[in-house]
Amino acid sequence: MKLSPYTAVIENVRPLVDGGRYPVKRITGEPLVVEADVFKEGHDVLSCVLKWRKLGAKAWHEIPMDCVDAWNKDRWRASCTFSAEGPHEFTIEAWGNIWKSWQHEFEAKFNAGERPLKSETLEGAAFVRNAAELAKARGAKADAERLAWVAREMDTATAERANEFAHSADLSAMMWTYADRSLSTEFVSTFEDTPALFPANHRAAARYPFVWVDRAGAGFSAWYEFFPRSAEGHADRGSKFRDCLQRVDYAKDMGFDVIYFPPIHPIGVTARKGRNNSVTCQPGEPGVPYAIGNRHQKCPNGGAHRDVAPELGTLEDFRWLVGEINKRGMEVALDFAVNCSPDHPYVHDHPEWFYHRPDGSIKYAENPPKKYQDVYPMNYHCETWREMWSELAGVIEFWCEQGVRIFRVDNPHTKPVHFWEYLISRVQTRFPDAIFLSEAFTRSKMMRALAKVGFTHSYTYFTWRNTAQGLREYFNELAHSESAEYMRPNLWPNTPDILPSYLQFGGRPAFEVRAILTTTLAPVYGIYSGFELCENEGIERKHWDAAGDVRGFLALCDGDYKQLAREEYIDSEKYQFKGRDWNQPGIRALFRKLNHIRKENLALQQFRNLYFQHSDNDLILAYSKVADGNRLLIIVNLDAWHPQESMIHVPLESFGLGEHQAFEVEDLLTGEKFQWKGRRNYVRLAPGERAGHIFRIRP
Amino acid sequence: MKLSPYTAVIENVRPLVDGGRYPVKRITGEPLVVEADVFKEGHDVLSCVLKWRKLGAKAWHEIPMDCVDAWNKDRWRASCTFSAEGPHEFTIEAWGNIWKSWQHEFEAKFNAGERPLKSETLEGAAFVRNAAELAKARGAKADAERLAWVAREMDTATAERANEFAHSADLSAMMWTYADRSLSTEFVSTFEDTPALFPANHRAAARYPFVWVDRAGAGFSAWYEFFPRSAEGHADRGSKFRDCLQRVDYAKDMGFDVIYFPPIHPIGVTARKGRNNSVTCQPGEPGVPYAIGNRHQKCPNGGAHRDVAPELGTLEDFRWLVGEINKRGMEVALDFAVNCSPDHPYVHDHPEWFYHRPDGSIKYAENPPKKYQDVYPMNYHCETWREMWSELAGVIEFWCEQGVRIFRVDNPHTKPVHFWEYLISRVQTRFPDAIFLSEAFTRSKMMRALAKVGFTHSYTYFTWRNTAQGLREYFNELAHSESAEYMRPNLWPNTPDILPSYLQFGGRPAFEVRAILTTTLAPVYGIYSGFELCENEGIERKHWDAAGDVRGFLALCDGDYKQLAREEYIDSEKYQFKGRDWNQPGIRALFRKLNHIRKENLALQQFRNLYFQHSDNDLILAYSKVADGNRLLIIVNLDAWHPQESMIHVPLESFGLGEHQAFEVEDLLTGEKFQWKGRRNYVRLAPGERAGHIFRIRP
Repeated sequence: MKLSPYTAVIENVRPLVDGGRYPVKRITGEPLVVEADVFKEGHDVLSCVLKWRKLGAKAWHEIPMDCVDAWNKDRWRASCTFSAEGPHEFTIEAWGNIWKSWQHEFEAKFNAGERPLKSETLEGAAFVRNAAELAKARGAKADAERLAWVAREMDTATAERANEFAHSADLSAMMWTYADRSLSTEFVSTFEDTPALFPANHRAAARYPFVWVDRAGAGFSAWYEFFPRSAEGHADRGSKFRDCLQRVDYAKDMGFDVIYFPPIHPIGVTARKGRNNSVTCQPGEPGVPYAIGNRHQKCPNGGAHRDVAPELGTLEDFRWLVGEINKRGMEVALDFAVNCSPDHPYVHDHPEWFYHRPDGSIKYAENPPKKYQDVYPMNYHCETWREMWSELAGVIEFWCEQGVRIFRVDNPHTKPVHFWEYLISRVQTRFPDAIFLSEAFTRSKMMRALAKVGFTHSYTYFTWRNTAQGLREYFNELAHSESAEYMRPNLWPNTPDILPSYLQFGGRPAFEVRAILTTTLAPVYGIYSGFELCENEGIERKHWDAAGDVRGFLALCDGDYKQLAREEYIDSEKYQFKGRDWNQPGIRALFRKLNHIRKENLALQQFRNLYFQHSDNDLILAYSKVADGNRLLIIVNLDAWHPQESMIHVPLESFGLGEHQAFEVEDLLTGEKFQWKGRRNYVRLAPGERAGHIFRIRP
Repeated sequence: MKLSPYTAVIENVRPLVDGGRYPVKRITGEPLVVEADVFKEGHDVLSCVLKWRKLGAKAWHEIPMDCVDAWNKDRWRASCTFSAEGPHEFTIEAWGNIWKSWQHEFEAKFNAGERPLKSETLEGAAFVRNAAELAKARGAKADAERLAWVAREMDTATAERANEFAHSADLSAMMWTYADRSLSTEFVSTFEDTPALFPANHRAAARYPFVWVDRAGAGFSAWYEFFPRSAEGHADRGSKFRDCLQRVDYAKDMGFDVIYFPPIHPIGVTARKGRNNSVTCQPGEPGVPYAIGNRHQKCPNGGAHRDVAPELGTLEDFRWLVGEINKRGMEVALDFAVNCSPDHPYVHDHPEWFYHRPDGSIKYAENPPKKYQDVYPMNYHCETWREMWSELAGVIEFWCEQGVRIFRVDNPHTKPVHFWEYLISRVQTRFPDAIFLSEAFTRSKMMRALAKVGFTHSYTYFTWRNTAQGLREYFNELAHSESAEYMRPNLWPNTPDILPSYLQFGGRPAFEVRAILTTTLAPVYGIYSGFELCENEGIERKHWDAAGDVRGFLALCDGDYKQLAREEYIDSEKYQFKGRDWNQPGIRALFRKLNHIRKENLALQQFRNLYFQHSDNDLILAYSKVADGNRLLIIVNLDAWHPQESMIHVPLESFGLGEHQAFEVEDLLTGEKFQWKGRRNYVRLAPGERAGHIFRIRP
């Protein structure tokens, strides 16, 4: 008969997302610090271990947990790391440690002068004998013999001799190795709602708290987005995959490592949009890559999501490009947009996957009174939803088979959250190195829900955070709230859809400020091509006197930015071929420098080490990042129009500096070195001269 | 094929104890306010309802949920109450409301001047026709006909006519009643770790968040504890059950409604303790009722936990006493102490339930170097633990069968937490009106864990909270932290084991202060007999000049009270017959008044309505309680030695008073009335004259 496993209480386990319903995320090698309340009845000494393993493995790794501090004896902590990517689980095992309890009891009686303690000594001998048997059963012959010898010694030992055994560190270590855990308790967290619907979901198999471990690239990367048809910058015709290498090398030269392409699939012709989002389209206009599918084009897979647009080349051309990019130590990210043009083969082959009007015709997308006649939304809850969900997951698997592992997902918040849980867990079962970026600029709960169900990265509100207060509050939430356990920011200062007012009205100095913030606030970021060229002409071609009231302007940028301007590009290349001189210098040199600094400084390759520091001047933002002795203090002038100066608080403790110690700060952007001292030091930053400092501190 | 149920996300549900692992507790009639984040993809209008039912019932009650506020559209709230005691469950159901979505879309297009909106009108007609079918299926013939008529009208309606239908409140109401919920999502929270081990656990059957509903008496009661053998107060001999009525009437006269008896079972003779905890016992000494079991006495059930001590009478006498107490509108609470004397029949019949020395003898309780030779601890994890746990649960069921429904459990924190989960859920399956009080004065996590697994009431640290800050912080935690959802305080100013220093050194005024705090801070409380007589002689007969430094003394009482005195009674009746003059007046009149006030004022019958108010003087504590128009402001002078005065903050808003309005406060203790005005008012309280005010506010 099984003994009761209920010997200890293990609760309030952290981290645990929604009580264990969703996985915690980690990168290979990144520590997972686990804490829990662990206690049991009575006076026994408690022991507990943190255990972890790859899902499906039998053997656990384990490490003893320690009390968090002397004042909180019921709170235990330990940490572990994961060497492989993919699904893992962890748990806590706790038990009343009979040997330690015996030691305490024996010592108390011995010190109180009780003798001969015969019964107590024999009890100890029995525990040691039990350990000897466990050692024998595990095949540890030498240990078994050693323990058996101790047990025999204790059978006839005086109290004084037994007391020596009670204090033997060697014996204690062996008694830990062969501890009697027959009465241990294990923490479990199993939910029943997943298995039936998501047979491919790893979570369904996990009885214990679940950890999804991503490869290193998921934690640190720099993305460069460009439209393949714009690779050469011709205003009158598009480039092809075979023309893209020059642009790839250009990005590599700046230090980027992911090349992200907007959709590369056939583009619909029905209701095709013209330049600047015109509802009519002139002959020869290339269309919007987000209106996907054209069964009238001759494509091996019917002109749908498994094809590339013939005007870009063939699937083989694409695979060639992927290979070339990989050869350069870079990766490709593809866009996954479930936007079907009226010409998409799905519309023809699976009309039941779409919404219908009473007359039987298919409904196009609307947000009344706006109409999007070039896109048909899909019905994720139609009768054949399983088939449809499976087909869409198959699209991603297809591109994985072509060598792609990164997917930027367009507007995931307009599809069911659980669809993504299904799709991502299915894809990652076959391709655990697949990375998904959620492009959801929407309410924060939805953004978090998408991250919980599996998205590796998330777009953020960073794009609209320009004041020191706005940046501090938002990044403290991202780095230090519970959501940091599962949501990883991927920072974008611009996108093909978003040209923020700060860039529109701040000019090149504003681009420099955003470049430094983007590359140093978080380890994963990206820019949309043209950012490095300081392209900033908005669709309204407006002007705004930002310099006249910088604080007021920044506050509007963070809040009611629609008062300032429509944040869209004029002549957006979403709708047209775009002429562009790729040879302008722009701020390419700055990116070359920033990406180099990121690669050389471990502190910039982590996120949750971000701590804001006090600056007397609220137009200067200061933050520190420390990792394994790499100590950085970053200071940015948010005012792109005027010089600003401030006293900056230096976190001496986290830099390992004494109160009155002098220390050297080296600006990694310029190589300049300064002598600083104490907690408060002076900086001055002038737009045009320098947008910020990236100080490396050496004691 | 089943349609996808994953149409909405429902998360962050509150209240939920440990993610749903343990039940939330409520009293019949007490509101349960449920909140959750609910949202879905896209632009559909969302609807959601709170649903609840008794466990095992098929039909749900339901009520629509509302957005918490205009700024938090993803947070929804509703509340419900439960009329029956026992296990209940609740959940949230959410769906995309196609009718409301249609209304919004139709209105937007109509207002934008689009005509003729034929397709849109037909779509609306189809929704109404669908509702007509649902009404028909449910047998609502009139509604079905009405809806079918509307659908036919809409088939041929102009846009203007359709717009009238879109704005019809009647139609909206019917479309809510017959809403299409085929694509709704329900919140579930199922854990797998309970069923196998606890077949009797209600929780195992619950797929949804679980609520345990207690009878009204669990939420409001006043306990009076006395030893039956002390009923008459003879110093040389014990009283019997048949002698107890006088004491019961005495408690009833003071307004108590629960009579709590320490253990009434046979007392062991082996190693019996003598007066003042002496390890030797003189002939004729009665022994400690907590050393339970004497198989040498002639008892119908062997002299164990199912027997009463013959010196108190027979089981029939006990049942007679229970009957008499019930006739007076009062109840009996019994003590459940799993302390076996060496003479307990278990020791003879089930030696395997105890711990053994290497020589085979049974181990007595120890906390080295202290020894408790008169008690054998039980081994809850022995080979036959299931049988043992079941036997102990059977003891409680036995006393339930004798008419007892309240059990005060001695030292539950020295037994496994999960044992109590098993025992309480098993007993409450048969006796849902059973109440369990946890006597655990230990670390707060263990106290909370015991409350989570089922204890109805918990002893608290109130006994050692005497400063205003200490009382405020602790009661804010009890009333307003997450633990308030499952842990109900039962306040005791003294127990047979605890005579707090404040009472030892504060004399009668201190008893008055504690009496007012005890009866008004929480709706459930108790006193151990002698409190009403101001008995305060400690085992050390020490004196302490508390008056010389009141703040310092109170701080020691809250903290390092062992510096002051051993907090035990001299000549404790745990160990001896106790002579006592029950006719001293003491503060019986004060209790008569306080218990009357409690019964007349609904605000004192609730707990989570407790809010502390500012007092300029930190020796005066002020707090308000409001319930259904019953508005109280309680002000207590914590200084038992000197008069104190203070300005007191009056929470005008919660009392429904205007800023400059005069209002009357009536002291319910004295009947005096005062005219007050505004937020700050003056009080003066002098020990001996009055310890506090219980003001009732009338606008």
